[in-house]
Amino acid sequence: MLSFHLEPHSGEPLYNQIYEQIRERILNEELPPATKLPSTRSLAANLGVSRNTIDTAYYQLQSEGYIDSAPKSGFYVCDITPTDYRHQPELPSVPSPQSRDIDISSSASASASPEYLYDFDPYSIDISHFPFSVWRRLSRQVLMDDQSLFLLGDNYGDPLLRDAICSYVRMSRQVSCTPDQIIVGAGVDYLLQMLSLVFHSLHMEHITLESPGYTQAAHIFHNNGLTISPGILDKNGLTTASISPASSLVYVTPSHQFPTGVVMPYGRRLELLGWAKSSPDRYIIEDDHDSEFRYRGRPIPALQGMDNLRVIYIGTFSKAIAPAIRVGYMILPPELLAQYRLICGHYSCTVSRVDQAILTRFIRDGYFEKHVNRMRKLYRSKHDLVLDCLQPLIQKYHLTLQGEHAGMHITIRLPDTVSETALIQHARKQGIHLYGIHSHFLPNHTPVHPEEAVLLGYAGLTEDDIKKGIRQMTDAHIFSASALSRSI
Amino acid sequence: MLSFHLEPHSGEPLYNQIYEQIRERILNEELPPATKLPSTRSLAANLGVSRNTIDTAYYQLQSEGYIDSAPKSGFYVCDITPTDYRHQPELPSVPSPQSRDIDISSSASASASPEYLYDFDPYSIDISHFPFSVWRRLSRQVLMDDQSLFLLGDNYGDPLLRDAICSYVRMSRQVSCTPDQIIVGAGVDYLLQMLSLVFHSLHMEHITLESPGYTQAAHIFHNNGLTISPGILDKNGLTTASISPASSLVYVTPSHQFPTGVVMPYGRRLELLGWAKSSPDRYIIEDDHDSEFRYRGRPIPALQGMDNLRVIYIGTFSKAIAPAIRVGYMILPPELLAQYRLICGHYSCTVSRVDQAILTRFIRDGYFEKHVNRMRKLYRSKHDLVLDCLQPLIQKYHLTLQGEHAGMHITIRLPDTVSETALIQHARKQGIHLYGIHSHFLPNHTPVHPEEAVLLGYAGLTEDDIKKGIRQMTDAHIFSASALSRSI
Repeated sequence: MLSFHLEPHSGEPLYNQIYEQIRERILNEELPPATKLPSTRSLAANLGVSRNTIDTAYYQLQSEGYIDSAPKSGFYVCDITPTDYRHQPELPSVPSPQSRDIDISSSASASASPEYLYDFDPYSIDISHFPFSVWRRLSRQVLMDDQSLFLLGDNYGDPLLRDAICSYVRMSRQVSCTPDQIIVGAGVDYLLQMLSLVFHSLHMEHITLESPGYTQAAHIFHNNGLTISPGILDKNGLTTASISPASSLVYVTPSHQFPTGVVMPYGRRLELLGWAKSSPDRYIIEDDHDSEFRYRGRPIPALQGMDNLRVIYIGTFSKAIAPAIRVGYMILPPELLAQYRLICGHYSCTVSRVDQAILTRFIRDGYFEKHVNRMRKLYRSKHDLVLDCLQPLIQKYHLTLQGEHAGMHITIRLPDTVSETALIQHARKQGIHLYGIHSHFLPNHTPVHPEEAVLLGYAGLTEDDIKKGIRQMTDAHIFSASALSRSI
Repeated sequence: MLSFHLEPHSGEPLYNQIYEQIRERILNEELPPATKLPSTRSLAANLGVSRNTIDTAYYQLQSEGYIDSAPKSGFYVCDITPTDYRHQPELPSVPSPQSRDIDISSSASASASPEYLYDFDPYSIDISHFPFSVWRRLSRQVLMDDQSLFLLGDNYGDPLLRDAICSYVRMSRQVSCTPDQIIVGAGVDYLLQMLSLVFHSLHMEHITLESPGYTQAAHIFHNNGLTISPGILDKNGLTTASISPASSLVYVTPSHQFPTGVVMPYGRRLELLGWAKSSPDRYIIEDDHDSEFRYRGRPIPALQGMDNLRVIYIGTFSKAIAPAIRVGYMILPPELLAQYRLICGHYSCTVSRVDQAILTRFIRDGYFEKHVNRMRKLYRSKHDLVLDCLQPLIQKYHLTLQGEHAGMHITIRLPDTVSETALIQHARKQGIHLYGIHSHFLPNHTPVHPEEAVLLGYAGLTEDDIKKGIRQMTDAHIFSASALSRSI
């Protein structure tokens, strides 16, 4: 039987103490792979804690890939030893690197139009709860206090803001860095452009990106002259075997893969880091786009915290605060930082100093944390509502959900009989805007059997509209293969 | 005798009516090249206007290159027919295009340090007169009025801001464009990067830049993979003969060449446009960096107004408002605009919408014009003071001034006996920071006989410090060749 040392009054939540102690034993192989864990009920009784506490600890371990559950038989320790990808046979579905180089000439994004009654846009956020009055007050204070803010500031971002970001990512994301490794810029797109310059100057000109994934990143790298290869996803996220041999760079969203919602488990993370370490000048770009929003357990620590020499960390305030606050940041490993200084050190910071000063106070004075906590509750409640409303449809139409309990959308995998395109068209006639997964495959990368799925974004909708929208989907039988064939 | 049709009550200044009518006759060759104009005194008497009015009209014609003055003999019409550069013999001082391609690995910028008592930084501006209270009020209004400003806006910049910029550049710079040709971005550096992407996608990969010139632009183009050639300047600015035959792009500052201060006259402008038109896909980038600040006559119209198909116009609010307001804009000819939309249409605007909204009101409600007018007066007064203080030194040390009556600095050309580097070192020992012209040559472009000159920036200094600083230069004999040789 597992023994635990719990300190109920330490201030550290009990579930986290349990999580830490099990995780520790898995890492040092005291609990080897395939070990069955006690059931949540018996462990709760044994430790004299609520079953919910154990549920949360197990859930956290499961999302991070340390344990897995088998239906009706409980929880088992996963094999976290990284697969040696170098000796893995080539996957038959992965074409040669040559043919996988893709050409991106343009891409299209969907936008809400008045013809839709309910827009389940996965990129939308809810700004109705933004603390406008706080922002106004801070803005007034900043403009009163410091006229020097109108002079040009630090090219890398104002030192106080970089300090605030540094504390935040260390605390909340377990990122390991110093403020001088942080570069502030006007949005992630801009930062990816600057990164491209650094890569070019180091003759790193080939990058693998998740497909489906964040196509805008592929577009930007392509525009900046990099060659793009699509990486294949399985249930653990990007497979290291699918990284093009020509790539020294890989772009991933390990905490919450966009758009599938997969959380990359510990074992796959080690594999990926193993790939990076197996040759000099290999780097992983970690886009931690919506890490603030997990609705069960703790946020999953950043990959960067596991290896701060090989991982470039990218964060943004667009989702947690507001898209119009054009502030993103990247955290560079020392070698790339030196090259960035050489190549781009003379580029002025693209964010206005006034905005930087407001944001600094917003973070430093605790408003950011409060706001994120409030939004997390709000989004969780919308998320739970979506799950509730979808429940009857899931069984009826054999749907599978993916990427729940985090982010701003749920991915609904469709059965083979249902075509994503037909479903979206059918929904459109009902005034419902759904978003397919196909448009998130990298351009010119058509998988042999493309998965069919729709993304249901809920953050930008009211609870009332979520209910009505899903009821309308239900009434119109939009997930029904036969209704679809009639509709076309 | 010239006859004029003047309307004293039309609201249009008399000097401008005279300027327009003479200019018209030069353009239609009613006044052919070498025609002597009446003296200012006789024309003033004839028209019954003050001599000052004629002075201003003639000065304007002279700065724009329509007329020229010969010492003690009056004003003559210039030959504005563009030289046919294609049949011009190669200048012996211009090396072959191959050897003129330069490699820029890094560059350094000077920054003020506490060891200096007087910093004549040509990049400094005076923000003590910035209307902080107006900006605060507008900022408060904007944050009260419109919460949708926190949602993502137009990728090209908010339509209202583009309208305001369009009206402004049409009125004040005679730029010919529609608001949809305008792209707003976080500073000129960023816009040059976006331009580089467009050029690359059209296989335009070679650019000629003024040398001495804006080295940061060269650095950015180089970082983005373009090949750079230095263009040679004469007293009329960039010579078309020195544009590399490999270049389809040229970057110029025609209204006020940085750093020499030369105004490109009409004839040279026509030549440059002729170069652009002589082959498809040739473009001129016009960086109109400090156009707001001319202290005599009207501002010189933008080159773009003469040909809106071949000229890319770039403007910024960094100098007229404040460097920390990271807002620049570029105005693209239709063909490049289409390509920009294709390649970069999905990049989010890098300027926060709140800042865009404040700036829109600042321009629309007349504060910008008022502020620029106030700053122009202020800078003019500092400029005149610098000229006054330098007067005794000019004759004594055989100095030549260049680029007066505009911008934020004066260029002092040194006699052959004085070394720029030695002079700057000598001044440094006196606590005076002077800036040489050498660092503005493009990297790896060392002219055979580099001109020796220092730039005296005055905008950021108080009148008191200007006086004291120049007095200290005088007392320390820093322009004296013999004092320099003793000092080293």
